[in-house]
Amino acid sequence: MDIDPALFQENERLTPEGDERQFAQVGALDCEAGGHIPEVTVAYETWGSLNAKEDNAVLVCHALSGDSHAIGWWDRLIGPGKAIDTDRYFVIGTNALGGCRGTTGPASLAPDGRPWRIRFPMITVGDMVEVQARLVQKLGIDRLRMVCGGSMGGMQALEWTVRFPNRVAKAWITASARAHSAMQIGFNEAARQAVMRDPKWKNGNYEPGQEPEDGISVGRMIGHLSFLSEAAFESKFGRRLQDKERLEFMLATEFQVESYLNYQGDKFAKRFDANSLLYLTKAIDNYERDSLSGAVAEYLFTSFTSDWIYPSHQSRELHELAIAAGAKSRWVEIDLPMGHDAFLLDGVQQGELVSAFLIT
Amino acid sequence: MDIDPALFQENERLTPEGDERQFAQVGALDCEAGGHIPEVTVAYETWGSLNAKEDNAVLVCHALSGDSHAIGWWDRLIGPGKAIDTDRYFVIGTNALGGCRGTTGPASLAPDGRPWRIRFPMITVGDMVEVQARLVQKLGIDRLRMVCGGSMGGMQALEWTVRFPNRVAKAWITASARAHSAMQIGFNEAARQAVMRDPKWKNGNYEPGQEPEDGISVGRMIGHLSFLSEAAFESKFGRRLQDKERLEFMLATEFQVESYLNYQGDKFAKRFDANSLLYLTKAIDNYERDSLSGAVAEYLFTSFTSDWIYPSHQSRELHELAIAAGAKSRWVEIDLPMGHDAFLLDGVQQGELVSAFLIT
Repeated sequence: MDIDPALFQENERLTPEGDERQFAQVGALDCEAGGHIPEVTVAYETWGSLNAKEDNAVLVCHALSGDSHAIGWWDRLIGPGKAIDTDRYFVIGTNALGGCRGTTGPASLAPDGRPWRIRFPMITVGDMVEVQARLVQKLGIDRLRMVCGGSMGGMQALEWTVRFPNRVAKAWITASARAHSAMQIGFNEAARQAVMRDPKWKNGNYEPGQEPEDGISVGRMIGHLSFLSEAAFESKFGRRLQDKERLEFMLATEFQVESYLNYQGDKFAKRFDANSLLYLTKAIDNYERDSLSGAVAEYLFTSFTSDWIYPSHQSRELHELAIAAGAKSRWVEIDLPMGHDAFLLDGVQQGELVSAFLIT
Repeated sequence: MDIDPALFQENERLTPEGDERQFAQVGALDCEAGGHIPEVTVAYETWGSLNAKEDNAVLVCHALSGDSHAIGWWDRLIGPGKAIDTDRYFVIGTNALGGCRGTTGPASLAPDGRPWRIRFPMITVGDMVEVQARLVQKLGIDRLRMVCGGSMGGMQALEWTVRFPNRVAKAWITASARAHSAMQIGFNEAARQAVMRDPKWKNGNYEPGQEPEDGISVGRMIGHLSFLSEAAFESKFGRRLQDKERLEFMLATEFQVESYLNYQGDKFAKRFDANSLLYLTKAIDNYERDSLSGAVAEYLFTSFTSDWIYPSHQSRELHELAIAAGAKSRWVEIDLPMGHDAFLLDGVQQGELVSAFLIT
């Protein structure tokens, strides 16, 4: 099966040219699972302007490896004239609680001046959403026109509609789930073990500059294995060799797909905190919503035929929960071959659905 | 989806009560990729007796983690009165070249009296088959009634039919492929990196008792992620917790699927050589057959609807290659939910097909 290579063009642009992040203090947080954070900082970015009626705000929630720079990693959907049109909407991106791109997380300094590391309390998707809600309030927004996100971001958007039903009109949730399946937990657990079994992890207390990069890298490779469909792997790499004509039969990498995984893993290890990877994957593994009762938002769920790690039936299940709760809901399965990555790569079909969803 | 738990009952019985292995010296080997092994030892076991016509020998080739004890790991298919009936057939199991269960491999002693480690030459599926062919000759068998195997074992069986067309009448190849796809290579590469990035791997030169067990364990977890279907993971584990009623929100494992992966990984690390894992996965990643021309064996290919790592289309492709080569061939897709593991777990449907295939 051949797939148009343009479909795979990467758009991972996390670091803006010139840091446009702003930071808000949103107070102390009593975490859902029992811990306490005396002061939470949220990193966020905004694009566009809040209109006079204050009804054009869109909150964008990122997936595991994303950050507040939504206009970068979702550049096919967000920007002037795009589906989430920054000429019409006031778009807010935040880094999730527990992350490592400006919002308080395990790598942040605890009150004693040392990094939290694994003294950081276990967090939940609900905690992430609580922090976002405080930020939104600080920005003077009573009610979001839309909250949206894919994968982990979709869980946050879903949770918004249940926790704050009167503060969000619409929710677009793509390639996500009401709870992780055993297989999804399994992939995350293998990634966590790759980190925690790296001796440099030191039970979570590594020194800055001494991060367990090999563990993070292998953990990220495990993630990438789940992001692409078999057809996408085949189309993107097949059995092509990296910088050589013929197999040399060596233990080192020879195939392009091997180089790709190592490259992605090592790149991620340089920018991501090991403990953030653990805390965020635990938060989404622990997340579970059996009902959306009380939710009044209008839902749009999207999923992809080739996504086997967040398969379509999970989005159908979400749609059914929304209908059961009496909410207005639509679920669209998009036929694209890229696997889970499609939620980041597809601007066309998601874009058409979302721009219509936002306007009406 | 609920799946009968009996389908998952494990049958991994590698270590016989009382070691029944025999060892044959099969001489020096010039490896296909260029190296040289001065003396190869093969560990093997046999069951049943060679008949007077010497036409009832069956060679069983194991998958990545298997060994010569085929009557153990394939106990649903091999034994008195079973599909591969040891009352009728003379059944031979061997440990593959490069393995670590008695046949010469990276953990064996090199001529200098120290373990080969990564001085061991890179081996191929063709080399494995060459070694098996010498053993079969030593046992006085000119022509096998059948060679068979699943996954890596299927590649060996396939290779037999091309290398030694006159020495094998039938080949049963289950859940296998003519060449690994990019996705299959990707899973193996992530497992290799888990091993090679473990500092205890020491560039392959670990001391006995100082094996990189954490790397092997994570590598094996990655393997297990690919052995089960989503439905199998769900049926076997779901979101059930290990030894507790409620989530405690901790970094340590809480879900059954997490315990399962760690248990499988750690168990494997105790019995498997790190370098064998590297050499064997490289051998199967490097394997590629674009044609079966010259083969005259009769083929039976089987595959499983739920096997996403060795998907059915790979077996269909093998069947088409066999037909194109003018061979007699049949491909049967078996509808079972267990994923790749089905080739080890299913004695019923494979058994019916194979017993008929063997007799006729």
